[in-house]
Amino acid sequence: MDRTRNEPLGVPGTDYPISEADLDHRDPKGLDRWIVSQIVRRLGDSPIRVALWDQPDITPRDGTVVVRIPDRKALFQLMSNPGLHFGDLYSAGRVQVRGDLLQFLEEVYRLGADHGALKLLLTRGRSLAPDRSESKRNIHHHYDIGNDFYTLWLDREAHQYTCAYYADPSMTIEQAQQGKMHHVCRKLQLKAGETVVEAGSGWGGFALFMAKNYGVKVRTFNISHEQVLYAREWAERWGLADRVEFVEDDYRNMTGEYDAFVSIGMLEHVGAGNYKELGALMSRSIGSEGRGLVHSIGRDKPGQLNAWIDKRIFPGAHPPTLREMMDLFESNNLSVLDVENIRLHYARTLEQWLERYEESVDKVRAMFDETFVRAWRLYLVGSIAAFTTGKLQLFQVLYAPSGAKNVPWTRKHVYDGHP
Amino acid sequence: MDRTRNEPLGVPGTDYPISEADLDHRDPKGLDRWIVSQIVRRLGDSPIRVALWDQPDITPRDGTVVVRIPDRKALFQLMSNPGLHFGDLYSAGRVQVRGDLLQFLEEVYRLGADHGALKLLLTRGRSLAPDRSESKRNIHHHYDIGNDFYTLWLDREAHQYTCAYYADPSMTIEQAQQGKMHHVCRKLQLKAGETVVEAGSGWGGFALFMAKNYGVKVRTFNISHEQVLYAREWAERWGLADRVEFVEDDYRNMTGEYDAFVSIGMLEHVGAGNYKELGALMSRSIGSEGRGLVHSIGRDKPGQLNAWIDKRIFPGAHPPTLREMMDLFESNNLSVLDVENIRLHYARTLEQWLERYEESVDKVRAMFDETFVRAWRLYLVGSIAAFTTGKLQLFQVLYAPSGAKNVPWTRKHVYDGHP
Repeated sequence: MDRTRNEPLGVPGTDYPISEADLDHRDPKGLDRWIVSQIVRRLGDSPIRVALWDQPDITPRDGTVVVRIPDRKALFQLMSNPGLHFGDLYSAGRVQVRGDLLQFLEEVYRLGADHGALKLLLTRGRSLAPDRSESKRNIHHHYDIGNDFYTLWLDREAHQYTCAYYADPSMTIEQAQQGKMHHVCRKLQLKAGETVVEAGSGWGGFALFMAKNYGVKVRTFNISHEQVLYAREWAERWGLADRVEFVEDDYRNMTGEYDAFVSIGMLEHVGAGNYKELGALMSRSIGSEGRGLVHSIGRDKPGQLNAWIDKRIFPGAHPPTLREMMDLFESNNLSVLDVENIRLHYARTLEQWLERYEESVDKVRAMFDETFVRAWRLYLVGSIAAFTTGKLQLFQVLYAPSGAKNVPWTRKHVYDGHP
Repeated sequence: MDRTRNEPLGVPGTDYPISEADLDHRDPKGLDRWIVSQIVRRLGDSPIRVALWDQPDITPRDGTVVVRIPDRKALFQLMSNPGLHFGDLYSAGRVQVRGDLLQFLEEVYRLGADHGALKLLLTRGRSLAPDRSESKRNIHHHYDIGNDFYTLWLDREAHQYTCAYYADPSMTIEQAQQGKMHHVCRKLQLKAGETVVEAGSGWGGFALFMAKNYGVKVRTFNISHEQVLYAREWAERWGLADRVEFVEDDYRNMTGEYDAFVSIGMLEHVGAGNYKELGALMSRSIGSEGRGLVHSIGRDKPGQLNAWIDKRIFPGAHPPTLREMMDLFESNNLSVLDVENIRLHYARTLEQWLERYEESVDKVRAMFDETFVRAWRLYLVGSIAAFTTGKLQLFQVLYAPSGAKNVPWTRKHVYDGHP
């Protein structure tokens, strides 16, 4: 354990036991004020203000944000591992943000890694190649907390829990999710009678969409039990059960050859150490004539997810750089045809999710508790900030076998005559 | 020097002195036939046939290609370093290809690296980070062999010696080169009054095109003396000398901030070891609000240019993979917005160049000699084969500063209302 970084401040590392005697003083000491002065100095001319527990709870002036720290323990936690503890303290209602939470988080992302004391983006040493049981645990953690919860705030038609595509920014979330699905199908140039294999089904919305709107047969893999049950029920209701097969299994067990491979929002959960293996499967599954598309959150430069999001929201998630994604293609005889980065569309998607979430917040509170409500608010707002500030990207990558002759001549067909 | 590979055949390495006595036999020996039988075995059911010097010069049957080897020395050279010697032997008219040269070269590319004896794609240890004087020598070798030569077969309007863009494959080379320039300007969304800096001007066609058609001011860098003189003359003739500045200097000396950076067909000459430095310049030159585009030949997986092309045609050229190209962006706070691979467009461009080249072949012969004629024919046909078989790619990469808010919302503007 390296405590060197903290020693000049005398602040204990994460695992350092803090005695209750040390912490129970109600009055801030000189050290507390000194720590805050260091933070403020680093913030420069940022609109963020820090208030300690003895200061009055004032409404911040226009354009500034006040972070209220309730006691010495919280202050020390924020100093020692802000990436992990800010989320927990905020969720518990102990640390409070007066003013615009989005503005605060965007500012923090912009200040970035140079501002150690406040950064929310600490890395941690989680495995980059989860095995099958790890994957199942990770996915269960996030997706099996209840379909009822997600349906409160996702689009009502296809329950897409991935970035939408807004041909026009004024679209509703329903229109934009349909738009995203069309956008992907047009890039893949799906034709009636073709076969598609999908890795990561979500609640089945995209598989059913492809079968219904493009006349293809779909086989789709998902390890989330709750999602698969939900998707099968939906397939029956829509009369598509003979054209869409929902397989409750790990994508690594995928077999067969198809006209197209597609994966929307699964790569984030795969782990960079598994990309070569996934790429081999992406290659095998389309033979010498097919094509495929991978849609994933990504990054401009390497990094790992915020420790709090990794612990509380999305265990094991990893947004790759394009360089990391090349492991899918380079060693598997695949050729990248087209990469589109629609980062700002994810910020818009999240804004619309957040709006619905806040409209249903009483129902969320009734399902869970106030800590959950605040945690998910922080997660949604923090994600908006990550996309607006460019800490996260959204890449759609279209590929085909290296040297394929039947690749699209241009990309005009994706746009022609479409909204 | 490692001769191990050749020892079982008793074939000397490249630098092994072959005595004339060894080579002057007019009749093939058992060893010669045995070598050829090994080659034929490796070719499997390919349509390539090998004929030695004692065999009659027959016209190949439909669909087959006969490679005629004139003597033992040529056979040994082909065995020891086919990547280098095939080009020289073909250019000298010693090795002959009866039948379709393109079909032959496509077949060779398809057989690929598993077929050591015939592969044309041997790697060599050339520096991947040429310094300034190396760059100048390399560029002089290729581009200063005479403007008159290139103008014989390039498009007549803009003398673009880079991949064209065919909205429709039936376009002429003139239409498709104009199409390429519009395509790039639309991706960059150039507006009248903006400033553009260009790395690698060629004969100035694109700089003049941008100034004329998009009303921008252009500063463009090139180290080819002949090209710069030509470009300046053209700028005067077109009355654009006040809006396009041709700088005869290395791109590394570029200074200032512009609305857009663009580079078409220069990255191939930069060397992967210089990408981080070039990326820093690409970032610096557009400040926090600009955008840029890099257009370059590339590869699906790492490799180096054919040794003969590197020695005789394009010294120091290196087509990067997308992974290698990420050195431009990742460490320089740049975000990749859009990657388009238009590989098949380069095959079509080269076909149209070859057609013009053959129409002017008597003039080329008069300027140079028959060896030059055959060398450039091999280079053009070989390049077609490299693109049709997918050994080479053509990437256009659009980028902006990481986190920029003014990035295009969609790519529809590139296609809407355009041919």
